Amino acid sequence: MKTATSRDNKETVVNGVNVGELFKTVDAVKKTASIAKFRFRAGNTWFDGGHNRTSIRDFYGAGAEDTSRKTPFILDADEPKVLLGGDRGPNPVEYVLTALAGCLTSSLVYHAAARGITLDEVESRLEGDLDLRGFLGISDEVRNGYENIRVTFKIKADATEEQLKELVQLAQKRSPVFDTLSRPVPVSVELNNNTS
Amino acid sequence: MKTATSRDNKETVVNGVNVGELFKTVDAVKKTASIAKFRFRAGNTWFDGGHNRTSIRDFYGAGAEDTSRKTPFILDADEPKVLLGGDRGPNPVEYVLTALAGCLTSSLVYHAAARGITLDEVESRLEGDLDLRGFLGISDEVRNGYENIRVTFKIKADATEEQLKELVQLAQKRSPVFDTLSRPVPVSVELNNNTS
Repeated sequence: MKTATSRDNKETVVNGVNVGELFKTVDAVKKTASIAKFRFRAGNTWFDGGHNRTSIRDFYGAGAEDTSRKTPFILDADEPKVLLGGDRGPNPVEYVLTALAGCLTSSLVYHAAARGITLDEVESRLEGDLDLRGFLGISDEVRNGYENIRVTFKIKADATEEQLKELVQLAQKRSPVFDTLSRPVPVSVELNNNTS
Repeated sequence: MKTATSRDNKETVVNGVNVGELFKTVDAVKKTASIAKFRFRAGNTWFDGGHNRTSIRDFYGAGAEDTSRKTPFILDADEPKVLLGGDRGPNPVEYVLTALAGCLTSSLVYHAAARGITLDEVESRLEGDLDLRGFLGISDEVRNGYENIRVTFKIKADATEEQLKELVQLAQKRSPVFDTLSRPVPVSVELNNNTS
């Protein structure tokens, strides 16, 4: 966000990101920190076995309820056959990789735009290792979740290898999902059968 | 997994979960720990701005490559308009809530099945708080990712409130995504423009 040229031109769009709007957002947040506070939401309904459906629509952000989405996004999760499911959707830990891939990519693209670096292609591959003995309650020595995750980016851009490596580092440094995975998040889970 | 009755009946299906197969899996993993090792994968391609697409298909597990999925699952991510995107899919942090909802639900359903508890309805609502000052690089005092996530379950089942509360606790204790979020996962991110 140090490209004076981009900052001067409020109409510049780089990598599909309106850089003028991005800098306006940064300036607005610097003045009023509360508009940076977002609350995202999801609702889930179970169907059968490993099959359940998440619905995503409204959220709170920029100081107001955002109801601009006319229909919800619907996402089915299930387990593959080998995990006794019907394979009607990716499984939940595959959704974790989806979240991470999307977030690192967007972070990279937005921050490249802010620096005036035009990207041609961005691809990534992700792998995560998980030992099911945790979930099955067989061993206390292995954790239930991912033991580690590896992400490899392949990028074509009008930039040097050095600049691209910096961008990948910056994406990682700024990505909300990278932070969510690599540092503990307090998660509360409760039963409340009295809600509507 | 202590229900002797269910363990004896290899054909019992509870909550859509084949409990006989589940116990066979547990027994097999106890004998050969390596079959519990899974490696999940995702590939992502960027399109424009906040819009990118994740493709999910093959994985390694139960001692072999699993190629049973004939077509990949395709998941689009984008940012809503207020975050300068085109809103062509949930955003990456909404995918995190999707992963958590699906995983807690499946964990609850599978473990209820193992205990012989029949579930009628399972619904959940999730909320996560995120301060964008981290992503925007404006403040080092706020983290980039979720500050906290809250999950509320509503369950109808042939069980007491006490049993349901125990189930919710067990779901949390065993869920791979709950663990992935609440304890740090090592994530490596690198540029490799030499891969095919």
